[in-house]
Amino acid sequence: MTTQRLERARTAMRDAGVDALLVGPSADLRYLVGYHALPLERLTLLVVPAEGEPALVVPELEAARAEESGAHRLAPLRPWSETDDPIDLVRDLLRRRGAQDGRLALQDRLWTSFTLQLQSALPGAEWVAGSTVMRELRLRKSPDEIRALHEVGTAIDTVHAAVPSLLRPGRTEAEVGRDIAERILVDHDEVNFVIVASGPNGASPHHETGERVLQAGDAVVVDIGGTRNGYCSDVTRDYVLGEAPDGYAELHAVLEEAQEAAVRAVRPGVPAASIDEAARAVIREAGYGEYFIHRTGHGIGVEEHEEPWIVGGNHQTIEAGMAFSIEPGIYVPGRYGARIEDIVVVTEDGVERVNHQPRRFVVC
Amino acid sequence: MTTQRLERARTAMRDAGVDALLVGPSADLRYLVGYHALPLERLTLLVVPAEGEPALVVPELEAARAEESGAHRLAPLRPWSETDDPIDLVRDLLRRRGAQDGRLALQDRLWTSFTLQLQSALPGAEWVAGSTVMRELRLRKSPDEIRALHEVGTAIDTVHAAVPSLLRPGRTEAEVGRDIAERILVDHDEVNFVIVASGPNGASPHHETGERVLQAGDAVVVDIGGTRNGYCSDVTRDYVLGEAPDGYAELHAVLEEAQEAAVRAVRPGVPAASIDEAARAVIREAGYGEYFIHRTGHGIGVEEHEEPWIVGGNHQTIEAGMAFSIEPGIYVPGRYGARIEDIVVVTEDGVERVNHQPRRFVVC
Repeated sequence: MTTQRLERARTAMRDAGVDALLVGPSADLRYLVGYHALPLERLTLLVVPAEGEPALVVPELEAARAEESGAHRLAPLRPWSETDDPIDLVRDLLRRRGAQDGRLALQDRLWTSFTLQLQSALPGAEWVAGSTVMRELRLRKSPDEIRALHEVGTAIDTVHAAVPSLLRPGRTEAEVGRDIAERILVDHDEVNFVIVASGPNGASPHHETGERVLQAGDAVVVDIGGTRNGYCSDVTRDYVLGEAPDGYAELHAVLEEAQEAAVRAVRPGVPAASIDEAARAVIREAGYGEYFIHRTGHGIGVEEHEEPWIVGGNHQTIEAGMAFSIEPGIYVPGRYGARIEDIVVVTEDGVERVNHQPRRFVVC
Repeated sequence: MTTQRLERARTAMRDAGVDALLVGPSADLRYLVGYHALPLERLTLLVVPAEGEPALVVPELEAARAEESGAHRLAPLRPWSETDDPIDLVRDLLRRRGAQDGRLALQDRLWTSFTLQLQSALPGAEWVAGSTVMRELRLRKSPDEIRALHEVGTAIDTVHAAVPSLLRPGRTEAEVGRDIAERILVDHDEVNFVIVASGPNGASPHHETGERVLQAGDAVVVDIGGTRNGYCSDVTRDYVLGEAPDGYAELHAVLEEAQEAAVRAVRPGVPAASIDEAARAVIREAGYGEYFIHRTGHGIGVEEHEEPWIVGGNHQTIEAGMAFSIEPGIYVPGRYGARIEDIVVVTEDGVERVNHQPRRFVVC
């Protein structure tokens, strides 16, 4: 990695009046210095002052892993031993850079236990969310990032192409899930999640893949994602074992239309909420409005879920370089659910799909 | 689950002068109400007032998963829809219980982005770490919890017994790691981590299992853990492929002695630091002091790492019912490392080992 992202972070900090950015183990840490730190009770914290050299505070016994990542070339390591207080170390670093009473941005997912200790050690500081700084960097993807999203998108499309061969009556969701996880690893570095929601389980959008045995006539929602070279995939398709249940084909046709309408609504300059409304209107007009119980999409990049949120009420303007999911769903409690999800990238004059598997449900 | 743990939490809150406890997705949430919530950007928060009924604030689309867990029987669900502000909901709940300007405890791992929003919405409150309340509950295990630790301990011992059959020159750490993960799943519900650190990689205590190819003469550190019925295992053993490298057998004999000395030092009434010192003294006197670069142990239960910390400077008194690891290590940079780790439980008059695999390194 180069210092380019750290420099962009400093620019964003100066624009936002932030004196220092404090980043614990998180996607932001990977994004800025390439270090995949474990979230531990021992504090790891990247300290990026608006002016002056950054530093990476690490537990001594993580120092070797931090060096393997190359992060020390961007931010010199400040290891602390088992009997040191790392909060003191952070306070001293901020003092030396004159930022101890300034406006300090804390990475969004930093553990609250660390935040409360920092707030107590630095009573003169004002605290803001790290996303104040990081949002601007991560929202608009660079050409390299978009290439990475296309590559990981192709990888997950390949897994969906194999799903029909794994689904058959008598197998449990968990068995199918394990097979899918194995296939994700063929061309991803990590499995992020595998949802196999069969029959009535399909009506719970975040159903936990479990011991339910697949049956003939089941509709099955398969929502899967992984990480490849630091970027995430996330695609949902629907499958039916044998004959589709009553009403399902009609419902799915509405869903296909809704997903297509939302994708067509994507272009620079529109508010995020208008994309949500494009999908929602189709579903509502077909009489399924009460069964679409979540937002239409979420940003994706170094994290599975990041900004922008494609949701009613979000007036954020869509811009070229943004990448997000379009995933309307219809959930009929006690019977079945369906969801179609693809990742799209906003171009200078419209939209480009990252995923290309047929969106019609597949009969297995 | 019953209301017993929630009642114990309320008692601890009253003792600590805490008016409400706010718990996001975490081991504490599982511990209190049995709900394994996904850590998401959509807020899930258990609100436990010192007086009055608790409530579980959940995103609408997680409500089905929350109900499956049975948590709603202990804390009625307060679902919020995609266009609601859940922070408003939490503020209103606290107001109705008269706790909005009180002393509020935030679960230690709650994302800082939520904490900053809560602090801004409730400017009159005083904020303390959730562990102020939860530490007392989780530190001393009940007989049921100790039984669960023994069961999961037996499960991981069985995996270590199979490790020699998986290690051979020519295989990569990652290949061995995948096989170990599969075996962990035979008798655990989840794999928590698998460290296979071969040759010089063994000198990094948290080495990431990678593409290094095992070679004859390698010393290999294998540190593995999983979760079974909500409780964690964590055991490290050392293996050697063929002939042990120069000096290794002597070093390992010191380590065995150090681990035994620390276990013998465990009994109610002693300070945690004295257990650390018992291991450290043996290693220091044998001339390896500079190579023991981490604490001797950590508590274990519903989390892999929890209190008490067995580390120099920690004057916390050891009590019956505590459970923790004893895991001294010696790390010689560029050459090899070794660590021996077992879980122990403190009894009324001494200590009981949870793990029973031989501690001598195994020649494969």
